[in-house]
Amino acid sequence: MNSSVNGKDFITTQDWTVEELERIFELAAELKRSKREGKPTPLLAAKTLYMIFFDASTRTRNSFETGMTQLGGHGIFLSPDKMQISHGENARDTANVLSRYGDGIAIRHCAFREGNDYLNEVARESSIPVLSMQDDVYHPCQILADYLTIREKFGETRGLKIGVAWTSAPNYVRPLSVPQSLILMMPRFGMDVTLAVPPEFRLMPEIEEQAAANAAAAGSSFQISNNFEDAFTDADVVVPKSWGPLMHTTDHDEGFALIEKYPSWRCGTEHMKLGKQHLIYMHPLPADRGREVTDEVIDGPQSVVYDEAENRLHVQKALMALTMG
Amino acid sequence: MNSSVNGKDFITTQDWTVEELERIFELAAELKRSKREGKPTPLLAAKTLYMIFFDASTRTRNSFETGMTQLGGHGIFLSPDKMQISHGENARDTANVLSRYGDGIAIRHCAFREGNDYLNEVARESSIPVLSMQDDVYHPCQILADYLTIREKFGETRGLKIGVAWTSAPNYVRPLSVPQSLILMMPRFGMDVTLAVPPEFRLMPEIEEQAAANAAAAGSSFQISNNFEDAFTDADVVVPKSWGPLMHTTDHDEGFALIEKYPSWRCGTEHMKLGKQHLIYMHPLPADRGREVTDEVIDGPQSVVYDEAENRLHVQKALMALTMG
Amino acid sequence: MNSSVNGKDFITTQDWTVEELERIFELAAELKRSKREGKPTPLLAAKTLYMIFFDASTRTRNSFETGMTQLGGHGIFLSPDKMQISHGENARDTANVLSRYGDGIAIRHCAFREGNDYLNEVARESSIPVLSMQDDVYHPCQILADYLTIREKFGETRGLKIGVAWTSAPNYVRPLSVPQSLILMMPRFGMDVTLAVPPEFRLMPEIEEQAAANAAAAGSSFQISNNFEDAFTDADVVVPKSWGPLMHTTDHDEGFALIEKYPSWRCGTEHMKLGKQHLIYMHPLPADRGREVTDEVIDGPQSVVYDEAENRLHVQKALMALTMG
Repeated sequence: MNSSVNGKDFITTQDWTVEELERIFELAAELKRSKREGKPTPLLAAKTLYMIFFDASTRTRNSFETGMTQLGGHGIFLSPDKMQISHGENARDTANVLSRYGDGIAIRHCAFREGNDYLNEVARESSIPVLSMQDDVYHPCQILADYLTIREKFGETRGLKIGVAWTSAPNYVRPLSVPQSLILMMPRFGMDVTLAVPPEFRLMPEIEEQAAANAAAAGSSFQISNNFEDAFTDADVVVPKSWGPLMHTTDHDEGFALIEKYPSWRCGTEHMKLGKQHLIYMHPLPADRGREVTDEVIDGPQSVVYDEAENRLHVQKALMALTMG
Repeated sequence: MNSSVNGKDFITTQDWTVEELERIFELAAELKRSKREGKPTPLLAAKTLYMIFFDASTRTRNSFETGMTQLGGHGIFLSPDKMQISHGENARDTANVLSRYGDGIAIRHCAFREGNDYLNEVARESSIPVLSMQDDVYHPCQILADYLTIREKFGETRGLKIGVAWTSAPNYVRPLSVPQSLILMMPRFGMDVTLAVPPEFRLMPEIEEQAAANAAAAGSSFQISNNFEDAFTDADVVVPKSWGPLMHTTDHDEGFALIEKYPSWRCGTEHMKLGKQHLIYMHPLPADRGREVTDEVIDGPQSVVYDEAENRLHVQKALMALTMG
Repeated sequence: MNSSVNGKDFITTQDWTVEELERIFELAAELKRSKREGKPTPLLAAKTLYMIFFDASTRTRNSFETGMTQLGGHGIFLSPDKMQISHGENARDTANVLSRYGDGIAIRHCAFREGNDYLNEVARESSIPVLSMQDDVYHPCQILADYLTIREKFGETRGLKIGVAWTSAPNYVRPLSVPQSLILMMPRFGMDVTLAVPPEFRLMPEIEEQAAANAAAAGSSFQISNNFEDAFTDADVVVPKSWGPLMHTTDHDEGFALIEKYPSWRCGTEHMKLGKQHLIYMHPLPADRGREVTDEVIDGPQSVVYDEAENRLHVQKALMALTMG
C-alpha cells in the first residue's frame, strides 16, 4: 500500500486533490466488490485505529470499527470521559503516545469553534494520519459516501444538479459540517450546487467563498437561494437536512425561535416532484422524521439513504487502507 | 458454512426444529474440542457481530465477544446510552444500516413487555441474523448451554428428570426468561420437567401451555407444583433460580412482600439429598448466595455452574458460525 | 510459546527472577524490531485478554489493547460499572468464568488497601495468568518499560545511578506504586537508587526494606534522602514524580496541606544540571506540567518520556506472549 497519500491526514477534502480523492473512490468500489464476493481484504492486518468520540455516533463508530475488522485490523473506541482528555497541552501527549502505538487516529469533535481546532492540533503533533469523523466545520467522510452513491446511480457526475436544502428541525446546535462539506467538494467533481437556506442559516462565509472558488475553477456552478423549492427544481440529487443558525446566534431560545420561523422547510412528495424524473433523496441519518422529511419520501422509491449509509463503510475502508497502509 | 440455518434468527428455540438445534450441539462439541487442542477455528474470519446491551451482563458479553475472536471475527459492544437508540421507527434504521455493514446483531433487552417486541422488530427489518442475548420472555442461549452440560454429564437425556424451582431473592423484576426457556426446550429432548413455584410466581400462561404441548408431542412430561421439594425429588438435574412475580404484579412493594413470603425457598444440602445420587445443581449465575442457594451447594461437588458458564461460549460460537457463516 | 513462565501471574516483579525478567526484555526488543520492520507477530492468535479497569487510563488501555491486536488476539475493555463486580465472593466467579473463556486477565485497581488484595484474590481463583495494570502497591509494567528505556540509552545498567524523587502536585491520593516498583526492581539490575522524599511521603516500610535487601543481594545500593537535589546529583537517570502522603495520612485536607508544604519539589533545568552530562528525565505520564516539572525539561532534549511510553507497548507484548502463549 505504498502511495503518495500514505500518512496523509484527512480533515477536509480541500487538502486533497481530485486525483487523490479519485483513488479513494476507486479503491472503495473495489473493496465493495470484494465484500460482496466474500474475498478477504487484509490490507491493514494487525493495525490499530484509535477512534476518539467527543460526540456519540453509532453509524460512524460501527462503520469505522467494522471497516477495520474487514481490513484485518482493529478499531479502539475511546470516549473522552474515560480518557481524561482535556484541551491544550494534552493533545500533544495524546498524539505523540498514540503515534508510537498504533496506525491512525480518528476523531469526532463537533463542539462549535473547538472541534476542528482540536483535530488540527492533534494532526500537528501526530506522526500517524488523523482522520475526521466529523467536526464543527467539516464531515468529509459523509461526503465521500454521498459522492460514491451519486456516481453509482448516475455514472458521470459532471453537469448534475445537487440541491443542498436547510430543513426545520428542533436542534439549534446541529453542526454546519455536512452542508459545508457538500458545497465544497461537489463542484470539484463538476456538479452544479444550489444551496437553499433562510438568511439566518447561512454557512461560514469563508466556506461559501471557497465553494464558489471551487466551482469557478472546475467550470461548474454554486448558487445560494433563500427559497426551499430552488434546491429541488430540475435537480438530480437533493440533500434536505437541518443545521443550527450558528453564524447568526448561539443563543438557545433565539435559535429555537429561528427554527420555528420556517416550519414549511420540510421535504415532502410535492417537493420531490419539482426535480428531474430520476431525482434521488439523500440524508446522512439519523433524520428527524416528520420535521425534516415525511415518511413517504424517506421510505419511498426515490430515497437512497441506506445505500448512502452503506457507502460510509466502503469509502472509509478505502481511506484507511490508503492513508494507514 | 452453507446450511439451512444460515441467516436464521435465534430469538426462541421454538422457531428451531430439534434437528436444527442438534446441529448447534454437534458443532459446539467440535469447537470445544478444537479449543482444548489449540486448533484454530476461523469460521467467521473478518466478520462483525453487533452486541447491543440494554441491560448489562459481563458473562454474556465476554462469552460472545471472546467467541467472535476465537472464530476470527470481532464483536462490537454497544450500549444504548452511547447509541441514542429509541424505540419505534429507529429500530428500522438500526437494523437496515447494521445489515449493510456487518454479519449479525445480538441483543439483550429484558424490560418487561418491551424486550422481545424490540428483538422481533429488529429481526423483521434486518437482513442479517438477530440473536437473543436474553429478553423478557426468552433466554435461549442459556438453555443451549444448560442442555449441552446435561448431555456431557449424562449422555442420553431422554427420561431424565429436571426440576426448575423458584427461589426467594430480593429482586422483584428479575425476568422470567430462564425458567420459560427451560420448560419450553427440555421436554423436546425427552426430559421430564417439574416446575416448582409459589402461585404468585407462575410463568406466562401461553409459555406454560406451549411447554405442555411440547412435552405431549415429545412423549415426555411437564408438571407444575407449588411445593419446592417436588423439583428435587428423584431429580437428575435441578435449576433453583429466582424471578419476579411479574404475572401477578409489577408493583415494587407488593413484589418484595411476595418474595419475602417464601423465605424457605432456598436450595440447601437437605434439598439436594432428595434427588438421585448423581443429581447436579445448575444456575446461570450470578447467584444470590445465601438467598437462592447455600455456599455448600453452589461450591460443592454436585454444582456444575462453571461447566455450565463455560458452555455458553461453545454453544454461542456454534450458533454464530451456523447462522452468520 | 512453551516456557517456564507460561501461565505465571505478574503482580509484582518480586515474584519473578532476574532471569525470567530478562526473557521479557529480550522478547520486547525482538518484538519492537519486528514492528519497525512490519513483520507479523501472531504469537497470541485468536486469544483474548480481559482488561478490567477500576480506574481509567488511556495509555494503559491503548498499549495493552493495541499489543493484543499486534499479537493476533483481542483485548476486551471492561469497566466495573458495566460489570456489577463487587468485592469478596464475586472475584471467585469472575476468575473462574473468565478462565474458561479466555487467556489472560489484566486488572487496574489503585484503591489504597484494596487493589493489590483484589488482584491476589483473582489470581488465586484463576487458572489463566493475572497481569497487573497497576494497583495500590505495584506498577510492574511501567517499571519494565522504564528499564527497557534505560538499557536502550545506556547499554549496561550496572553502576548507573537512578534518582526517584517525590514532586509536589495537588493530588493527595496518587498511588505509591510507581516509586515502590522502581526501588524494588532497579537494584536487582545493578543500579544504585536514591529515593528523595519529604518525611511525610515515605513509602510502605516493608517495600523500603525489601528494596534495601534487593540492593544488598545484588551488590548495588539503595539510599533514602530528605533532600530533593540528592536524587539528581551525579545521576544518570531521574524519575521525579508525585504521590500521596498515604503512609502518613489519608485525610483530604491534611494531605493537601502536606503537598503545599514542599512547593520547591519541582523538577527544573537547574536540577537537571546537577546530574551527569547524559542525565535523562523520565516520567510515566500524564505529568502535572508546571507542578511536577517545567515544560523546558519535559519537552527538552533530556526527556525520554515518549520513548518510555512507547516501551510500555513492547514490554507488555512480551509479557503477554510469554505468560499467555
